[in-house]
Amino acid sequence: MTDKPFKIAIAGLGTVGAGVAQLLNMNHDHIKQRCGRQVLLNAVSARSKNKDRGFGIEKFQWFDNPLQMVTLDVDLIVELIGGADGVAYDLVKAALQNKKQVVTANKALIATHGEELAEIAESNGVNLMFDAAVAGGVPILHGLRDGVCANKVSSFMALLNGTCNFILTTMAATGRSFEDVLKEAQDKGYAEADPSTDVDGFDTAHKLAILATIGFGIKPDLDHMYVEGIRDIKADDLSNAAVLNRNIKLVGMAKYHKGKVVQYVYPALLPVSHPLADVPGNKSAVLVTGDYVGDLLFLGAGAGQNPTASSVVSDIMYVARGEKSLPFNIPVQNLSDSLPTEILEREGAYYLHIVVAANADIEKGVLPEIETILSEHDISLEELVRAGPAGASGQDLCFTTSSTQEQVFLNLLEKIREIAEVISIRFIRME
Amino acid sequence: MTDKPFKIAIAGLGTVGAGVAQLLNMNHDHIKQRCGRQVLLNAVSARSKNKDRGFGIEKFQWFDNPLQMVTLDVDLIVELIGGADGVAYDLVKAALQNKKQVVTANKALIATHGEELAEIAESNGVNLMFDAAVAGGVPILHGLRDGVCANKVSSFMALLNGTCNFILTTMAATGRSFEDVLKEAQDKGYAEADPSTDVDGFDTAHKLAILATIGFGIKPDLDHMYVEGIRDIKADDLSNAAVLNRNIKLVGMAKYHKGKVVQYVYPALLPVSHPLADVPGNKSAVLVTGDYVGDLLFLGAGAGQNPTASSVVSDIMYVARGEKSLPFNIPVQNLSDSLPTEILEREGAYYLHIVVAANADIEKGVLPEIETILSEHDISLEELVRAGPAGASGQDLCFTTSSTQEQVFLNLLEKIREIAEVISIRFIRME
Repeated sequence: MTDKPFKIAIAGLGTVGAGVAQLLNMNHDHIKQRCGRQVLLNAVSARSKNKDRGFGIEKFQWFDNPLQMVTLDVDLIVELIGGADGVAYDLVKAALQNKKQVVTANKALIATHGEELAEIAESNGVNLMFDAAVAGGVPILHGLRDGVCANKVSSFMALLNGTCNFILTTMAATGRSFEDVLKEAQDKGYAEADPSTDVDGFDTAHKLAILATIGFGIKPDLDHMYVEGIRDIKADDLSNAAVLNRNIKLVGMAKYHKGKVVQYVYPALLPVSHPLADVPGNKSAVLVTGDYVGDLLFLGAGAGQNPTASSVVSDIMYVARGEKSLPFNIPVQNLSDSLPTEILEREGAYYLHIVVAANADIEKGVLPEIETILSEHDISLEELVRAGPAGASGQDLCFTTSSTQEQVFLNLLEKIREIAEVISIRFIRME
Repeated sequence: MTDKPFKIAIAGLGTVGAGVAQLLNMNHDHIKQRCGRQVLLNAVSARSKNKDRGFGIEKFQWFDNPLQMVTLDVDLIVELIGGADGVAYDLVKAALQNKKQVVTANKALIATHGEELAEIAESNGVNLMFDAAVAGGVPILHGLRDGVCANKVSSFMALLNGTCNFILTTMAATGRSFEDVLKEAQDKGYAEADPSTDVDGFDTAHKLAILATIGFGIKPDLDHMYVEGIRDIKADDLSNAAVLNRNIKLVGMAKYHKGKVVQYVYPALLPVSHPLADVPGNKSAVLVTGDYVGDLLFLGAGAGQNPTASSVVSDIMYVARGEKSLPFNIPVQNLSDSLPTEILEREGAYYLHIVVAANADIEKGVLPEIETILSEHDISLEELVRAGPAGASGQDLCFTTSSTQEQVFLNLLEKIREIAEVISIRFIRME
């Protein structure tokens, strides 16, 4: 314990950066009591010096170039610039090389360069903390790293992207289209002008890669994940899922399959009784299964200024108290290589939405034909959700299958596509 | 990082102790990979040397008296004897005084002597870890201490006792009596022969005191809590609660009320939509609310050999990795005094079960009279659950009230008791 104030610099004063500065100010005395010393914000850097942030920056040293802060007399640098490469990467690397402690909320950075950066942190004996990078305010990394580490983790299943959760929840409640709800989310500021990182699943993939590294001890590797987003989900799918007592969520999953860790991000139908099925749009949830602890659920605000600031400042306090740990809580040299996820080896059930010609006889023609093909593939039709009625573009035939391998399922689809009356097919995986 | 094995001794080889020994053995390589060094169990002590534990103890040094282990050449002592005083207390104190690291699952010990023991640990620079003491396998203390510490916590609400949760869940599902289900729980080994610690709320109180210390920075003080158990809950209450779309759970709560922290343990009616209402009997759940993070839910196995061993060994690994923290993550000298909880100042709604004479006219006589008394106390009748029918012992009149202060509510009860036709009254608080 020391009486010396703990000095920090923040790079990036967007929503999260401003929240961190405000939290440090608002809870100053609380933080001091908890750490046994003051935490002082000394220096800041951001793109625009004059932007109105709701608080004055006059009392902090200002840097146009955040890289200049790595040689400052500060103990810790908070990186809140964002992005896997560019300034964020340069700053974190240089800070660690200068033996500065680092806290970041940057999931893309850690998922992409985590191994290299953790190695520098380890060899220089400094912390590289990033609890805010996964599930916002939910202290999942601290929980996992310190409270669950005795377990061999067998699986993660998580809802990690608020934008997708908001869009799917709203589509289900209102029957509106993906495009329509995405536009609302953009107007309200829940979604970026370029929504690809969120809706195409990459944000979920970044967070899942970090979970998988800590949980399974494998190197983070985005190229080894299967990633699919929610652009193709139709309002129809959500109403049909409701008939099946299921919700559709964008899930991130990592688990052992045939002796290796597979990592999936895709929209999936979950039974309403599943712990993740009813998670509201503004929450994130992580379900972890370990060999001794069984199932653990962590649920809370997954994004937003205050919850994210909560995790960032908690990480800062961890370092200010003098605690020290390895970035992934496992020596980097002990991380094993991740292996490619083969989606064709996925095993599970499927929901199918087939559009059939308007004049086709589903009951006596198409359906029996499909059932024959199913049985040739050792798959059974589990629940028939809808057969007809005829619409302008054809009739809907929607049903779920028994569990099978994705490769077998795709072979099945090829056969179904050969039926003359079948106009189009889409499917969603079930968990 | 060091190549030297991390040596430990375990005192107490009951269910949890045996689980810890087995986990250390089963996940030996995993633990070594995660810690960067071996964790070796060197010495054990238990009441009976010859009991069949499912594993041999020949390879460990044996001690009849666990206190002899504090001078051994081991790095850490695991206390799994249990009890607030006696050998457990003597051992932990002596171990800390001998600068041994300590891990314990002993909630009674920490709730009772936490301040003194933490002070010794702090001044001797060793860890005193006890994540297994609260909510079994759920890593709530690591989550709180490291991931939520930036927040001013405003409240905890938690289900912390599996025995009570099992009893109430079974009573609700079957309509059986408390005594009957308790006996089943005892026969199955879920409840102790002397069930008082569980069913009278003391176990929940121990755990809540630890949560409150870490969350609010107050000294643990069992005398300052209000504690009430579940012995008086009737099957009727559970079926009436169901009519109200509510479940009855034994909750532990700590929150600010009129500027001080109050700590309650009592059975309460929770709306079925409440995050804690549907927690199954074998799970524990903690809902934490912080000023920046909002609501966080932690849910998982709250007891049992494997989940508890998971938390104990995770704590051991924390120390083996070389991490170091204060027992409550706040210097003991910064803990503020806790203040007595005045149940009479509690504010909330109530469920009332009044037995009225068999020959009374509820609709035209007793109920209007009660409504007059209610309105004299500025309380309204919210939902009438049952009025009659006449049974052998009288008619049931069950309803809920609007929110009021407990002192006012008790005054109200006095007045209702004065009604000639009223035979008995019981009540349950609502949250």
